[in-house]
Amino acid sequence: MSSTVPRVTALDTYDIRFPTSRELDGSDAMNPDPDYSAAYLVLRTDAADGAEGHGFTFTIGRGNDVQVAAIGALRAHVVGRPVDELCADPGSLARDLTGDSQLRWLGPEKGVMHMAIGAVVNAAWDLAAKRAGLPLWQLLADAEPEWLVSQVDFRYITDALTPENALRLLRRGRAGAAERTERLLARGYPGYTTSPGWLGYPDEKLTRLARQAVADGFTQIKLKVGADLHDDIRRMRAARAAVGPGVRIAIDANQRWNVREAIEWTNALAEFDPYWIEEPTSPDDVLGHAAVRRAVAPVKVATGEHVQNRVVFKQLLQADALDVLQIDAARVGGVNENLAILLLAAEYGVPVCPHAGGVGLCELVQHLSMFDYVALSGTTEDRVIEYVGHLHEHFTEPVHIRDGHYGAPLAPGFSATMRPESIARYSYPDGEFWAADRATKDDDGDDGSEGAVA
Amino acid sequence: MSSTVPRVTALDTYDIRFPTSRELDGSDAMNPDPDYSAAYLVLRTDAADGAEGHGFTFTIGRGNDVQVAAIGALRAHVVGRPVDELCADPGSLARDLTGDSQLRWLGPEKGVMHMAIGAVVNAAWDLAAKRAGLPLWQLLADAEPEWLVSQVDFRYITDALTPENALRLLRRGRAGAAERTERLLARGYPGYTTSPGWLGYPDEKLTRLARQAVADGFTQIKLKVGADLHDDIRRMRAARAAVGPGVRIAIDANQRWNVREAIEWTNALAEFDPYWIEEPTSPDDVLGHAAVRRAVAPVKVATGEHVQNRVVFKQLLQADALDVLQIDAARVGGVNENLAILLLAAEYGVPVCPHAGGVGLCELVQHLSMFDYVALSGTTEDRVIEYVGHLHEHFTEPVHIRDGHYGAPLAPGFSATMRPESIARYSYPDGEFWAADRATKDDDGDDGSEGAVA
Repeated sequence: MSSTVPRVTALDTYDIRFPTSRELDGSDAMNPDPDYSAAYLVLRTDAADGAEGHGFTFTIGRGNDVQVAAIGALRAHVVGRPVDELCADPGSLARDLTGDSQLRWLGPEKGVMHMAIGAVVNAAWDLAAKRAGLPLWQLLADAEPEWLVSQVDFRYITDALTPENALRLLRRGRAGAAERTERLLARGYPGYTTSPGWLGYPDEKLTRLARQAVADGFTQIKLKVGADLHDDIRRMRAARAAVGPGVRIAIDANQRWNVREAIEWTNALAEFDPYWIEEPTSPDDVLGHAAVRRAVAPVKVATGEHVQNRVVFKQLLQADALDVLQIDAARVGGVNENLAILLLAAEYGVPVCPHAGGVGLCELVQHLSMFDYVALSGTTEDRVIEYVGHLHEHFTEPVHIRDGHYGAPLAPGFSATMRPESIARYSYPDGEFWAADRATKDDDGDDGSEGAVA
Repeated sequence: MSSTVPRVTALDTYDIRFPTSRELDGSDAMNPDPDYSAAYLVLRTDAADGAEGHGFTFTIGRGNDVQVAAIGALRAHVVGRPVDELCADPGSLARDLTGDSQLRWLGPEKGVMHMAIGAVVNAAWDLAAKRAGLPLWQLLADAEPEWLVSQVDFRYITDALTPENALRLLRRGRAGAAERTERLLARGYPGYTTSPGWLGYPDEKLTRLARQAVADGFTQIKLKVGADLHDDIRRMRAARAAVGPGVRIAIDANQRWNVREAIEWTNALAEFDPYWIEEPTSPDDVLGHAAVRRAVAPVKVATGEHVQNRVVFKQLLQADALDVLQIDAARVGGVNENLAILLLAAEYGVPVCPHAGGVGLCELVQHLSMFDYVALSGTTEDRVIEYVGHLHEHFTEPVHIRDGHYGAPLAPGFSATMRPESIARYSYPDGEFWAADRATKDDDGDDGSEGAVA
């Protein structure tokens, strides 16, 4: 390894888990007891400024170790790369990672290995933005359209979006970008909150938190549904009564239903005017979403947090299956693939409302929506970023919410850096928290390490 | 753990890799240098007969360790289960594994975690068939239709196949099953061979092996295509000249193309009468396959070896995107999900021609096709199982090929058991083969452990 140029010297991984299942935060019809977790990595360099790149995959507990192993399997692709080359062209890393033919067999471009690629690619973008001294949204919004197009892998999507059309969209997006940047810095980007609507919350807590959300300036909230129709009718009625007719209420089934159930259940809740039904069925079911959409209009159909890659998003758009496209910052192959997805959404004129929550997803995805607003879609109309109010304290640059809006991050990077003390405390299984937890459980005769079994 | 009934006592994992890249066996347009590998597991029991269940995921080298870790993550779900209950209802294990909400986040039902589930579920079926004293195909063919339906997870597919229709198909399949079993035992199930057509082989070897295939009784061969059109035209011409007009030649692009390229390239080879074009584009692209199919007829469209689950197969059928459905024994969630896929294919009247080759895929998938013939589709017309002639020597019950047909396996189980000496020799990185290989490489100053890097 030459010492003449700074290089990536290490890819360090961490298995970080938070015990969120204790409070039923994050509970929904498919995920009754998540322990929000991060398979986390740091790219270390020998650059004079000591710059590091941070990235992660969000998981909900068990299997976070598998995700960490997958990130580790990418080490040889990134350690040794010259820092300046990497930062000037993160797309070449993204292409090398998705193009590793042996690793590709494990997907291709889906699941554990693809999320690992996304984490490493996002860490490279964090490094690039830090080195540029810019928040990522601004680095992207300031970039030349030609360069942004060079960052996109068009394989498998040229039947919906060509590089030429992508360039046209990005050039169009430059008009008025300076004014939109000012507006963004002044006002922020609209958010909506899922905090009232977790399935495990009693009605009183739902009502209280829904009222609080409106008082806090949110114009949209979201309720988890899909476990029991009578419960959902009662909860939806309570929520509508709490927020009044002027606030949008999205509902989210977290993939609980078959196509016919999705249609019947959504229509049974229609009297409470739900704004969108999210994840009505399998995220893989393009044709199923199209069928649901035709049958539940004017309720909108939203999906994306579990959509595995740009190829499935492409088809959701081609099949008129979506009213709202929900990108996720840590599910697909990182910023580069999300650029492809934002461009596809722009080409089809479908608004992007990101999935967030989890661990650090709000911190990441705000950058992508802000870029989209400033330099691509040019509007925040009918666009909102999900907001969930927990776990932000573990990040060095947590999101700022003011009056229902995400404040534009100003610190250089991708807001992906977790506090060292949080990493130490919640590392699994040997961080302070889990070691202490295990000691308690051992007293009870429960090993505490696995929730499931025969 | 009670000692009164036999239970699963351990799930042991092995990282097994064969150095196939040295001979370009298995080379294609997307996979230039695979090292065929298995993330392998053994379910051990304390049953008096000492029965074990063996299963594995096939990979092509790097990342096999990640796959092994994913299989290990399922240990708590299976260790401790009563053997008799498990064997009487492998579907309950399959449902528990795919239903683990925390692990589900890592897919859902796709990629590394889903293939791990498939490996464990297949091991349970191997155990069940061994305990029943039957080859798996026969256990399935003898089973009551009601029980087979109980083994299928209909979530997300009821818009294409209801349990009632599945039962109807299986009842219909019983008529003539005894005669078909006799015919199967006498004649075997038709195969086709990919051995001549690897992309890395020189034309002379292609021609020689193609002639040999015909002499060996095969009525179909397959060529890898997609790297260079002029090369493909030359190779296809040579292959057609070698086998004559009466032998089918399938071509396989291994996902190399965008939709338009797939159409143009396939049509450019049409003069040589290819029988099917396999994996013309991304396995995720249902609508893309439908577009290709419309444009290349009468050349048939085949795909499936990388199709992640029953939901995508369902859509390929709904969208009229397929002429030939290629199941893979180790890509989806095991025998149970393959039952769902075979039933979907039967419902839509599409022939199933399994993907095989790899490590042990021929050994596994023959059981599924033989069940399909005896008790579901009732025919072998236009149905062939892929055959590749390498690595069978590592299995205790390797496939038998006679006159272009797979002989029906007679030994109890799923033919999944690898020889202990092969496991020992090819375990990575410390088995004899790899230790010796590393010692040689160390002399050359190459660490030999990773093929890629910056």
